[in-house]
Amino acid sequence: MNSMDTIVALATPSGAGAIAVIRVSGKDAITLANSVFTSIHGKDLTQQKSHTIHLGHIMDGKKTLDEVLLSVFKGPNSYTGENVIEISCHGSPYIQQQIIQLFLRKGCRMADAGEFTLRAFLNGKLDLSQAEAVADLISSENEASHQIAMQQMRGGFSNEIKMLRDELLNFASLIELELDFAEEDVEFADRSQFKALLNRIQEVLKRLIDSFAVGNVIKNGIPVAIVGEPNVGKSTLLNSLLNEERAIVSDIAGTTRDAIEDEMNIGGIGFRFIDTAGIRETKDVVENIGIKKTFEKITQAQVVLFLHSAEEFKKSEIDLKSLQTEVGKIATKHPDKPLVILVNKIDILSEKERESLKQLLTNVDGTTFQMISAKTGEGVEALKNQLLHFVNTGALRNNETIVTNTRHYDALLKALEEVQKVQFGLENGISGDLLAIDIRQALYHFGEITGEITSDDLLGNIFANFCIGK
Amino acid sequence: MNSMDTIVALATPSGAGAIAVIRVSGKDAITLANSVFTSIHGKDLTQQKSHTIHLGHIMDGKKTLDEVLLSVFKGPNSYTGENVIEISCHGSPYIQQQIIQLFLRKGCRMADAGEFTLRAFLNGKLDLSQAEAVADLISSENEASHQIAMQQMRGGFSNEIKMLRDELLNFASLIELELDFAEEDVEFADRSQFKALLNRIQEVLKRLIDSFAVGNVIKNGIPVAIVGEPNVGKSTLLNSLLNEERAIVSDIAGTTRDAIEDEMNIGGIGFRFIDTAGIRETKDVVENIGIKKTFEKITQAQVVLFLHSAEEFKKSEIDLKSLQTEVGKIATKHPDKPLVILVNKIDILSEKERESLKQLLTNVDGTTFQMISAKTGEGVEALKNQLLHFVNTGALRNNETIVTNTRHYDALLKALEEVQKVQFGLENGISGDLLAIDIRQALYHFGEITGEITSDDLLGNIFANFCIGK
Repeated sequence: MNSMDTIVALATPSGAGAIAVIRVSGKDAITLANSVFTSIHGKDLTQQKSHTIHLGHIMDGKKTLDEVLLSVFKGPNSYTGENVIEISCHGSPYIQQQIIQLFLRKGCRMADAGEFTLRAFLNGKLDLSQAEAVADLISSENEASHQIAMQQMRGGFSNEIKMLRDELLNFASLIELELDFAEEDVEFADRSQFKALLNRIQEVLKRLIDSFAVGNVIKNGIPVAIVGEPNVGKSTLLNSLLNEERAIVSDIAGTTRDAIEDEMNIGGIGFRFIDTAGIRETKDVVENIGIKKTFEKITQAQVVLFLHSAEEFKKSEIDLKSLQTEVGKIATKHPDKPLVILVNKIDILSEKERESLKQLLTNVDGTTFQMISAKTGEGVEALKNQLLHFVNTGALRNNETIVTNTRHYDALLKALEEVQKVQFGLENGISGDLLAIDIRQALYHFGEITGEITSDDLLGNIFANFCIGK
Repeated sequence: MNSMDTIVALATPSGAGAIAVIRVSGKDAITLANSVFTSIHGKDLTQQKSHTIHLGHIMDGKKTLDEVLLSVFKGPNSYTGENVIEISCHGSPYIQQQIIQLFLRKGCRMADAGEFTLRAFLNGKLDLSQAEAVADLISSENEASHQIAMQQMRGGFSNEIKMLRDELLNFASLIELELDFAEEDVEFADRSQFKALLNRIQEVLKRLIDSFAVGNVIKNGIPVAIVGEPNVGKSTLLNSLLNEERAIVSDIAGTTRDAIEDEMNIGGIGFRFIDTAGIRETKDVVENIGIKKTFEKITQAQVVLFLHSAEEFKKSEIDLKSLQTEVGKIATKHPDKPLVILVNKIDILSEKERESLKQLLTNVDGTTFQMISAKTGEGVEALKNQLLHFVNTGALRNNETIVTNTRHYDALLKALEEVQKVQFGLENGISGDLLAIDIRQALYHFGEITGEITSDDLLGNIFANFCIGK
């Protein structure tokens, strides 16, 4: 990676579309573009203002490759902080390829994955956690993960970390100053203020570390196990949950994506529904292997929907006792996992039957219940709300910083450990020089998050996860 | 289709990428965008110059949807001729969807397929054949089809048609003027000049009509049948032809596409290789059905490669007589179809064996031959040149107008028919009023090509083939 090179890449998804955008960044971006661009008004690109757009042709010698709109961004007022050219060409893969090849022949090289954003980081346009948020933002698939990434990209997380770091740095300097005057036994750093700061830092760190449980689940989707015997209506349930969302998506031709089976957005949060066999025991060996698998899947899930059909109750196939036994099996193994008894097909019940079913379900210990009809849609909305209730979206609603990145999580854990060492040292009166080392160590982990401390390996790992052209 | 609406669509391919571009066009595009865009410099979009780019956030109420670059184009200086906004956002499908939905809620409607280009046509930014070339350009997959589409988009074809139309229109007016003075028996239109013009028009029309044979084949790829027994090396042949091209493509990460099997570019022209069973007769009924199919495929092909392996000659499985018999079978049915005897695996032959093989092949009537080694690459370049030789690329090289569009072809045929009627009438002294009708009819077909004559049905058909967002 040589940051002096001028780099080129396709910035839009590959394939045919109405238009495609090719991005060029580097010292020579504008002069290079000028050498292959013929403005319809005879303009010289090097003489144009930043943030202007020009119509013309990309010429490979005498051959016209395409009529394009070319955008000029002059460093440092660009995404990368360097001179940047964006070419909006016709979306044929052939044309994209020809234009990129032309720029390669003119002396550009292909951008590595994430190299535009890496340059933005190296040129101080973004800190590291903001740069990482760019990738998260692109891969965000629902409102919650989008909101978190957006907040992080706009610097919310970095600011919180930086403030703590600055205060800690201030104390570190004072303590290191004391070391210089060690023989005089002065105390520049007020120990009680310092202890208060350490407490405050630990509080924030713990809150951030705790938020990772939510953040991680939001980023990857909340796993929900649907436990139920065959024919209780699993697929109609999933379809009725999906219905509304699908209708929205299909309104927008061109932006529809293949739905990942059993993965859906509810109220802006991603849920992953894990289909399982039931847990009703039989003498059949194969089925009992199925039950074992069901329990494995329940272990992975964060919420368990225990699905029944109203038919089972109508035919008296199941009663309070058997229901309590089955619930007991799950609850014993996973006492803390939210468990919802869901009765589907209630449209077949009379008003009186509903009432007695409600009575029955109210008496099952250790669960909540929900009666729905996937067919008529009754109760589906309530079920959605119930699912959202299990996600701790408080932090999200309150716009608090939520950590979603494992790298940040690790750094926060390490920082907390170091801060705790500092506190322990302070309480046990260890010497200033040892204290200073622990503080420096904590500062190091803070710096890792925002990128004040980096290594080539670290940067390589982070930006390798980006797509080309970003 | 209401051309007063402000329309919105995703202009880049769907899916995740570094960036995506959302396009908005219509009278209200800029004011609408202004209502959801917060510039980081506090700019008012309605006060900005055309062809400028602005950094800011797309806001859905208080919620930030994305940080974007927004381009302003003021009508008539835009693609559609209307006010146009292009939003370059992060390439997450979720964000694309949210921004498009926001614009829909603000009063835009989703653009129909090709509606941006339709508006460009309706607003006089492009004529109809140029608009059609936009779709051809996007779907062009090789140099030849790209070059033809580019020439058409830049108006080469339209200009040629328009010049003829204008001259014809001039004569039509003179002849119609004569009708007004019918009783005075004047002749405003010089009959010998008119005959010369009609000849010239017919020449041009015939050239354009003839070019369709090349154009069509270039647009859809040249079908080449590979006839050969099993194990003579069909797949290694295809691979060695493909090799070089693949290497170029894979240099450019992000622009590589899945190769369509057996379809490739050679020297900028698309070739489609049709694999067939051989034609060697056996007593096996199934195999003989195979031979029938082979002949069907040969009928579809424009060139036949009759593939053999050097092993067959080395083992004396085939000699001049049997080769001539087999060639005869093909040549009898398709006397005009170019037939190349291709001998693969010549790397296994000694110098002496090569010489005698060459002698043998020279003596096969009605064919050319080529000796290659798909393994070492020997002769592959010569084979490519031979294939290109069979395509009449003269017109292409000479930058002549080539017709690729069936609609244009039909209109040209009809125009020619009418012009021939006019000529016949002129030679047989039919009355001026009948002559005028035929001329008007010819003019009508010219006008169909460039879109001076259109109908809603016609426009609907043409633009339905476009992608959304173009």
